[in-house]
Amino acid sequence: MLLALPTQAAAGPGGQLALALALILVAAKLGGDLAERLGQPAVLGELLAGVLLGNLDLVGVSWFRTLTTDVSLAGLAEIGVVLLLFEVGLESTIQDMRQVGWRSLIVAMLGVVTPWALGYLVGVVMLPAHSPFVWLYLGAILTATSVGITARVLRDLGHSQTPEARVILGAAVIDDVLGLVILAGMGGLIQAADTGASASFAGIALVVGKAVAFLFGALWLGTIISPRLFGLTARLRGASLLLITALVFCFLLAAGAAAIGLAPIVGAYAAGLILERVHYRGFSERGEHELETLIRPISGFLVPVFFVMMGLKVELAGMFETRQLGLAILVVIAAIIGKQACALGGMRSTLDKLTIGIGMIPRGEVGLIFANLGLGLTIHGERIVDQTMFSTVVLMVLVTTIITPPALKWSLRRRR
Amino acid sequence: MLLALPTQAAAGPGGQLALALALILVAAKLGGDLAERLGQPAVLGELLAGVLLGNLDLVGVSWFRTLTTDVSLAGLAEIGVVLLLFEVGLESTIQDMRQVGWRSLIVAMLGVVTPWALGYLVGVVMLPAHSPFVWLYLGAILTATSVGITARVLRDLGHSQTPEARVILGAAVIDDVLGLVILAGMGGLIQAADTGASASFAGIALVVGKAVAFLFGALWLGTIISPRLFGLTARLRGASLLLITALVFCFLLAAGAAAIGLAPIVGAYAAGLILERVHYRGFSERGEHELETLIRPISGFLVPVFFVMMGLKVELAGMFETRQLGLAILVVIAAIIGKQACALGGMRSTLDKLTIGIGMIPRGEVGLIFANLGLGLTIHGERIVDQTMFSTVVLMVLVTTIITPPALKWSLRRRR
Repeated sequence: MLLALPTQAAAGPGGQLALALALILVAAKLGGDLAERLGQPAVLGELLAGVLLGNLDLVGVSWFRTLTTDVSLAGLAEIGVVLLLFEVGLESTIQDMRQVGWRSLIVAMLGVVTPWALGYLVGVVMLPAHSPFVWLYLGAILTATSVGITARVLRDLGHSQTPEARVILGAAVIDDVLGLVILAGMGGLIQAADTGASASFAGIALVVGKAVAFLFGALWLGTIISPRLFGLTARLRGASLLLITALVFCFLLAAGAAAIGLAPIVGAYAAGLILERVHYRGFSERGEHELETLIRPISGFLVPVFFVMMGLKVELAGMFETRQLGLAILVVIAAIIGKQACALGGMRSTLDKLTIGIGMIPRGEVGLIFANLGLGLTIHGERIVDQTMFSTVVLMVLVTTIITPPALKWSLRRRR
Repeated sequence: MLLALPTQAAAGPGGQLALALALILVAAKLGGDLAERLGQPAVLGELLAGVLLGNLDLVGVSWFRTLTTDVSLAGLAEIGVVLLLFEVGLESTIQDMRQVGWRSLIVAMLGVVTPWALGYLVGVVMLPAHSPFVWLYLGAILTATSVGITARVLRDLGHSQTPEARVILGAAVIDDVLGLVILAGMGGLIQAADTGASASFAGIALVVGKAVAFLFGALWLGTIISPRLFGLTARLRGASLLLITALVFCFLLAAGAAAIGLAPIVGAYAAGLILERVHYRGFSERGEHELETLIRPISGFLVPVFFVMMGLKVELAGMFETRQLGLAILVVIAAIIGKQACALGGMRSTLDKLTIGIGMIPRGEVGLIFANLGLGLTIHGERIVDQTMFSTVVLMVLVTTIITPPALKWSLRRRR
């Protein structure tokens, strides 16, 4: 009757974790409320609330900053972001992805290539002493569009069914997938280069090919497995079976993505794309809540934890040193100008090109996820995303998120 | 633009956490399904699933055992048990507690005193080399009744409105509170004795007084604050505000309990007792889901993680050594016989005394929580709950949980 060594009795640090969660949630909701009152998306308020709390160490309150090293909170934030991507995936179907059309694909590609090139150039100019992989990664961070913020603004303005909106949202969805593929490719490339493998074109192709193969393989296999899995669990006895089956499916694909070197969120997004209401109609028919209704409380609890934790990592001290401010300003400009290339995707049509360019600006959560993953990557002992760059990216996300709603509102009204 | 050192980028161990959660949830649901098919509560299957996975190291698969030291999983399990006690608290109101009456109080007290004395005696006989605090704690572990299991069996048999059921459930609710007070008292007493303070009656009285004062203070203050808090947050903009307000209230009381040396679950339970539907009618009136509906997905996800993790900590190797088996058998007997004293609470009435005694047997989650907290307590370098005792307690919980449903079914039918 021996026992494995429980180094952490669940009792000990319970008070600290409970207090941290309570304060993080209060900050998130107050920040979100303020942001919404100012016509901004709630995520902006959550980030700024985190930045504010983290920088209370400037006035002597350093407790919040110490939370950035709390492993339990990091685990909760991690599940939060996995569930966020799962939810975003649930909103689209594989069918939607097919119907988006070539125009969205062109807009998305343009919106990836130019910010990437501009970001790389900013790296060359402002970070000459760093590895080219750092420049490449900086460019990659600038590629992804946040579907969430644009979709929300378009809907709030009653424009979500216009042709421009369809092109933008389609492109943003493709951008999501491209972003995840780029992220997987960059991660694999840097890890290969770091361990001494040559960064050949064949190597890059292999990594990107692996990411694409995983996504398509998961989408194909998942579509076959998912209805059977739910059919099986619908026969089990017990509570919360629909929810737990969906979570298990999401976590398994996240773990599968991680196992072949991709980010767990890639798998979570794929899981969301795969799952359709029809797969779990056995549960719906016996009167259970819809899956979205069941997941929303969990994501409503954990997603704000992720964004506040992101904000906590930003240190404002030193923000106004000339050199670092210069980097930040150039990155923001590259992020905004880069996406204006998307307007070219509207050529030879009556589409409002300016609106398309503006609609693609916000980076939101995807840019943060990129930057956060970069914190864990190194190349020959040098961190790919260091303290300076992380804060720069958060600033870029804040600025692009702040300017989009009013700019889009102006651009849409200008046309009438 | 510096950054606090993020020792854990959320990216790194994501795959491991996702995989662990997926497998834990699968095991929980399969175990729960099997248990329910055999007419047993699902929690029993979750525990046994954990025991099974943990002991796969006997056949060379030690990965599951290593999860017992995973800090992220421990944090999730911890939030799970906090939410479980919050939910149990939500099921009762302060009013219910007042109406339970003297008979339930007597039944509850008898059901605390005799198992405690018997457990202490078992300690004296079987663990002569250990500290008297160990004997005291062993007795204390045997005091608490699991409301959940008894309530569920009574309801499944259509007996939840009988006089016996009311007395049993009332006593079980009081037992919950007494258990938490005892837990707080024992914890404080042992910590005081460990740091050299004399374990005087005054010291015990202080600790118990502090626990009672916290409970009553929280109940009194909380009842005043809660409606105002929900009134305030109902005016905020944003998503999931009802849920988040309730979670913040729960986490703050949990942290408050921890701050004065009580277990966080004491605060969570008090928070649940305080919250009434009328406090958040501002939210209900605008068509939001009920609080229970919002919390169930989170607890449905995290509570099974707690119980499977409990099971993972049990090592069966060595279980059948004569001495340890003897301890286990005596503890189980003390746990069952001890609660038969409750039948005396039915004296001078037409109540079925045997049914009352049987209904009070299951220890369920509360015994586990006691044992788990004991893992973190030491007295002069000796652990209060060591490997042997933890496994013994889990066995006791399994046996009392297994025998109650059939015994209660038999006892109730015998009378007709």
